[in-house]
Amino acid sequence: MSFTNTRTVRIEWGDCDPAGIIFYPRYFEIFDASTTALFERALGLTKFEMFKRLPFAGFPLVKTQAKFLKPTRFGDDVTVESSVTFGRSSFEVAHRLSLKGALCVEANETRVWTVRDETGALKAHAVPDEVKAKFNPSS
Amino acid sequence: MSFTNTRTVRIEWGDCDPAGIIFYPRYFEIFDASTTALFERALGLTKFEMFKRLPFAGFPLVKTQAKFLKPTRFGDDVTVESSVTFGRSSFEVAHRLSLKGALCVEANETRVWTVRDETGALKAHAVPDEVKAKFNPSS
Amino acid sequence: MSFTNTRTVRIEWGDCDPAGIIFYPRYFEIFDASTTALFERALGLTKFEMFKRLPFAGFPLVKTQAKFLKPTRFGDDVTVESSVTFGRSSFEVAHRLSLKGALCVEANETRVWTVRDETGALKAHAVPDEVKAKFNPSS
Amino acid sequence: MSFTNTRTVRIEWGDCDPAGIIFYPRYFEIFDASTTALFERALGLTKFEMFKRLPFAGFPLVKTQAKFLKPTRFGDDVTVESSVTFGRSSFEVAHRLSLKGALCVEANETRVWTVRDETGALKAHAVPDEVKAKFNPSS
Repeated sequence: MSFTNTRTVRIEWGDCDPAGIIFYPRYFEIFDASTTALFERALGLTKFEMFKRLPFAGFPLVKTQAKFLKPTRFGDDVTVESSVTFGRSSFEVAHRLSLKGALCVEANETRVWTVRDETGALKAHAVPDEVKAKFNPSS
Repeated sequence: MSFTNTRTVRIEWGDCDPAGIIFYPRYFEIFDASTTALFERALGLTKFEMFKRLPFAGFPLVKTQAKFLKPTRFGDDVTVESSVTFGRSSFEVAHRLSLKGALCVEANETRVWTVRDETGALKAHAVPDEVKAKFNPSS
Repeated sequence: MSFTNTRTVRIEWGDCDPAGIIFYPRYFEIFDASTTALFERALGLTKFEMFKRLPFAGFPLVKTQAKFLKPTRFGDDVTVESSVTFGRSSFEVAHRLSLKGALCVEANETRVWTVRDETGALKAHAVPDEVKAKFNPSS
Repeated sequence: MSFTNTRTVRIEWGDCDPAGIIFYPRYFEIFDASTTALFERALGLTKFEMFKRLPFAGFPLVKTQAKFLKPTRFGDDVTVESSVTFGRSSFEVAHRLSLKGALCVEANETRVWTVRDETGALKAHAVPDEVKAKFNPSS
């Protein structure tokens, strides 16, 4: 029921370690880009454009967890499905990364929508209604 | 009570994103290297030497979680305290990353000790007693 | 006249530094993957498959140079054109990275085709004729 | 004769690729941090402090070249010697990375000192005399 974006990512040689499998911090790079792609798909704005058009100064992570079920390796084209659940200023993003239909990694992120305060520091801010509405087009 | 290793890590310009703070996948690179440093401290072997001297083919991650409490930025020298709790073939590593005494990130990893089976594939293997003994010198 | 592969790459938030532009080592990650994509396009094999099907143990870099003419930033979809010129065991790959038709980075790599010797060490080896032939289908 | 900074860097597991040796873009991360360390050593300011105390908005790369003479691998503690030669707004940094006395990588960077113009864009600016003076204490 929640809005989902799906994308394909090639695991590269440089993402892998001497064991021949992906070095796990690379998964978090993939998930961060997948969250950006999810918002771009819903809003029709790149993250760069979000900074220009919205009250927005980034959505830093406050918490994440991940389970690594099966390894992936260079040359694999993996599928990442990402969906979001909104709170007030925080939101949860769930990512499911799979290879040929087999789930490889399951991850969750808790992020906070931020704006800059008058001193330039990041502070939490309610996710704008215009943003939430784009994720829930039927309501 | 558990064996702890402490090291200092400089957060670099290239670790940071356009918000001016660390891009969070870099923390997992730091934690992976901190787990390696913990074993090196206890065993007196680099990871490269562990492959040569022990029944060992890596300790891939099966699960991780992290809480990001305060951001860090380039030029910060952060302290990472890492400690381990052994199961049979799996083990937990806890990392506490702090800046000037303030806790910034708390993370846990579950890893599995592996060896290569006869086909060359990774399989779980009991953590060798000689390894556990080095983390518990008094027993 | 030489075989060229063109691909599009999204510059991500996590590729950029606190100045808001790409952190230049990320370009080399892009070029390394672009060289792999060039061979995959010509040979019809992923790099993983190259290890299995060919006398091949990687093509490490021996030299590179790059000119950075215009910066790129997150949200940019850049185009990378890559082409190769073969010597005996070494070869040159030229990469041209552009944004909306404007050249941003020009880079050259010198790489060596390698195989494993009997001790497992990497050694230079003539690029197989079957490989060169795939880059030059008309000859 | 030119000001030189020397530092030691541990090559990590996550810096290495499936061939078991360092993935070459990691060298450029090391060199970027080595340039920062060179300026910190001369000026007594972290890069973060340079932004606060100097007319400075970064020193982006305009050109680089590198020769890779011998591979390094995880567990290696390499030595990086970095020195600078100033032009007006551009400067050259030379890096020599060695392992146990054997030269492994030789690299040169051309960078430009920048400030922000009134629109916030980066523009080249003469390297401040107070900066150059710190690299040349005897003059």
